[in-house]
Amino acid sequence: MSEPYKRVALIGLGLIASSMFWAMRRIGTQTHVSGYARSAETRETARRIGLCDTVCETLPEVVRDADLIVLAVPVGAMGAVAKEMAPYLKPGATVTDVGSVKQTVIDAVGPHLPDTVHFVPGHPMAGTEHSGPESGFDSLFDNRWTLIVPPSGTDEEAVQRLEAYWQGLGAMTERMEIEHHDLVCAVVSHIPHLIAYTMVGVADDLSRVSDQEVIKFSAAGFRDFTRIAASDPTMWRDVFLTNKDATIEMLGRFTEELFALQRAIRTGDGEQLHAYFTRTRAIRRGILEAGQDTDAPDFGRTKVK
Amino acid sequence: MSEPYKRVALIGLGLIASSMFWAMRRIGTQTHVSGYARSAETRETARRIGLCDTVCETLPEVVRDADLIVLAVPVGAMGAVAKEMAPYLKPGATVTDVGSVKQTVIDAVGPHLPDTVHFVPGHPMAGTEHSGPESGFDSLFDNRWTLIVPPSGTDEEAVQRLEAYWQGLGAMTERMEIEHHDLVCAVVSHIPHLIAYTMVGVADDLSRVSDQEVIKFSAAGFRDFTRIAASDPTMWRDVFLTNKDATIEMLGRFTEELFALQRAIRTGDGEQLHAYFTRTRAIRRGILEAGQDTDAPDFGRTKVK
Ligand SMILES: NC(=O)c1ccc[n+]([C@@H]2O[C@H](COP(=O)([O-])OP(=O)(O)OC[C@H]3O[C@@H](n4cnc5c(N)ncnc54)[C@H](OP(=O)(O)O)[C@@H]3O)[C@@H](O)[C@H]2O)c1
Ligand SMILES: NC(=O)c1ccc[n+]([C@@H]2O[C@H](COP(=O)([O-])OP(=O)(O)OC[C@H]3O[C@@H](n4cnc5c(N)ncnc54)[C@H](OP(=O)(O)O)[C@@H]3O)[C@@H](O)[C@H]2O)c1
Repeated sequence: MSEPYKRVALIGLGLIASSMFWAMRRIGTQTHVSGYARSAETRETARRIGLCDTVCETLPEVVRDADLIVLAVPVGAMGAVAKEMAPYLKPGATVTDVGSVKQTVIDAVGPHLPDTVHFVPGHPMAGTEHSGPESGFDSLFDNRWTLIVPPSGTDEEAVQRLEAYWQGLGAMTERMEIEHHDLVCAVVSHIPHLIAYTMVGVADDLSRVSDQEVIKFSAAGFRDFTRIAASDPTMWRDVFLTNKDATIEMLGRFTEELFALQRAIRTGDGEQLHAYFTRTRAIRRGILEAGQDTDAPDFGRTKVK
Repeated sequence: MSEPYKRVALIGLGLIASSMFWAMRRIGTQTHVSGYARSAETRETARRIGLCDTVCETLPEVVRDADLIVLAVPVGAMGAVAKEMAPYLKPGATVTDVGSVKQTVIDAVGPHLPDTVHFVPGHPMAGTEHSGPESGFDSLFDNRWTLIVPPSGTDEEAVQRLEAYWQGLGAMTERMEIEHHDLVCAVVSHIPHLIAYTMVGVADDLSRVSDQEVIKFSAAGFRDFTRIAASDPTMWRDVFLTNKDATIEMLGRFTEELFALQRAIRTGDGEQLHAYFTRTRAIRRGILEAGQDTDAPDFGRTKVK
């Protein structure tokens, strides 16, 4: 068994960091957690709601004694934060991040870190459309996967220690190659978000259909897109700017298929449409069997315990 | 107050018809409900689970004494059913349908009906991805809208009677012009379904990402698409074949916007992305305020009572 971290530092106090804190509290670890956020407002909120044992005013202060430092800021901000905190890291500490994109983060963070610390990038595949210090909850990671994406040559013990930590928070872990991570996430997360944003944008833009109508009749399918499209704009801007190649490639595949279906609609090819719509059901069945969603008749999704 | 229907006939015993039956039972009306489905298997299931007071073996039998006849079969089957049942309709009866497309259904059904009956097309804007006689539940229409789409010249009293009937099942009602209905539904329902089908198809097709991975990591956004894309292939084939014009037009708008966002990603235009992703949040807020979804941190959607 790996030794648990005695002191954890959370940098950025939003949805992911606050959920990590509440999950640590739930298991009642003795771990001391210090936290830091950019704005005085977020630090104040954190103190008010008891988020972190200590809320620090500066980066040097928050990382000073930490055994694990978690970068939980938008992907585009990771490099600057890493640079500023680097001189104050304790030798032997592990630095990880929770960014949704990995190649860009590794390129931006890695070079700033001293050889005396371990860098083990990670990515919890769970989230909601909410953000900020008050959006976290202790079961966010339960029964969800956290991907561990160590660059080659990373210390094996440091990797295993981080895996054990995430498992303690309720997650399952899996290791993945950097490039493959960014492609998989483009498919299961980034492109779905972009498409949802686009669909909601189109509906909002259409002068012949009022927003009021879109809102009233959303339960017919559209509603699910609006939830995804309510996610934090800064986070998603950074994701698309930093996972450009995989995103553009997958978008190409998506529009190709969409054009093929559009053609089938235009030419009245019912057989092709029926065959296409039949094939996609197997994936849904797999997701239900894997416990990654429930099947309630009301579209309900209760928390997976 | 309109007089309630004494005898209702449900033709087609799938998700919508069975939900209508259970909703009628819930309010404990004295209404007698007869039902008919094409296949002996569905009729047998209906008898076994107590769906309808009488399950009939033929169309003439099911419509004979009915005051309200509900066509609840796929859009492409409505015309043939209407033709076959027409000679047996009781004078003064009302025929309605629940089809997801209205212009095509009205063109297919209307000409077959005798002048002695009222034809008042309708469309409940609620559904799930499930189908068949066992998928219905009594609260499906609660707090959801049913659109009433009467062709000009329809008897006002017949329209009001149908509106009162739907309100009794828990729905809110609104009247809409035929063409506008088909456009609104393309936006809030048909295009979202087509996009979800396409996204799931692309993921399934991608050799470099396994289905296993797609399933495991679906909670990152993709999951919502798979639920929508598990809907009945026959129903959706018919929707796209019969709402061709509005679908193709809206698809054009969608791909235009998607290309604009793709260009912003390619050129690294973070400002445009951020502005676009910010605008879509207002729609989400409207949906929450209108009670058409809930805001639980787990993506949960409990049944609206
Ligand atoms: N949300 C999800 O669904 C999800 C899922 C998996 C991974 N992730 C990844 O997790 C990370 C955090 O996401 P989140 O959802 O927790 O975000 P969030 O709720 O929006 O919180 C972001 C935090 O980062 C801070 N921050 C923002 N910009 C900064 C900057 N330029 N410099 C320093 N700090 C900055 C914010 O500080 P202030 O409050 O002071 O502004 C805030 O504390 C992101 O990298 C994201 O890609 C998110
Ligand atoms: N599902 C939704 O989300 C939703 C929402 C609003 C409106 N609608 C509309 O409601 C209608 C019914 O949908 P549903 O979801 O209730 O469908 P469903 O669960 O698939 O049931 C369809 C019923 O129609 C019968 N049927 C199928 N093809 C037929 C044919 N060619 N001739 C005669 N009967 C046939 C089936 O009989 P067998 O069982 O014997 O095959 C079954 O009883 C459709 O027009 C749909 O557009 C659906």
